[in-house]
Amino acid sequence: ENGAVLSRMGGELRCQCISTHSKFIPPRNLQDVKLTQSGPHCPNVEIIAMHKDGREVCLDPTAPWVKMIIKSWMDKAQANSDSPV
Amino acid sequence: ENGAVLSRMGGELRCQCISTHSKFIPPRNLQDVKLTQSGPHCPNVEIIAMHKDGREVCLDPTAPWVKMIIKSWMDKAQANSDSPV
Repeated sequence: ENGAVLSRMGGELRCQCISTHSKFIPPRNLQDVKLTQSGPHCPNVEIIAMHKDGREVCLDPTAPWVKMIIKSWMDKAQANSDSPV
Repeated sequence: ENGAVLSRMGGELRCQCISTHSKFIPPRNLQDVKLTQSGPHCPNVEIIAMHKDGREVCLDPTAPWVKMIIKSWMDKAQANSDSPV
């Protein structure tokens, strides 16, 4: 499946995404989206999503729907009420 | 410290952020930033950053520098070259 995430072998840091998934994934299937900073371990900013069933997938940062998810969740976060935990 | 992250007790899902950290954190200190979708477990979209030393902190979604980090990393991701892993 495109977008497989490499497990971190023994904490050794490197790129986690060999390929990225470009096909649309309905946001309701996703639990979170993580942006990883580029650095000495990997020249790429990587975007890794976790499905609600725990599977992880590398997303294509240039795919419009990926940008949309991040934008809409950020917009939603602005409207967070300080609901009690 | 503001922005402590609740550990998930026995996988029971709920909000992970009791409070959020608004004070600027230099992005170079951060390894990744995760956006979690709101849902039945928590009405809030939560933004949780991981420091390079492994500490996690909940970020204030309305803080301009938080939005800047996400925007700049997304912009950088667009320019990812398909560098070999």
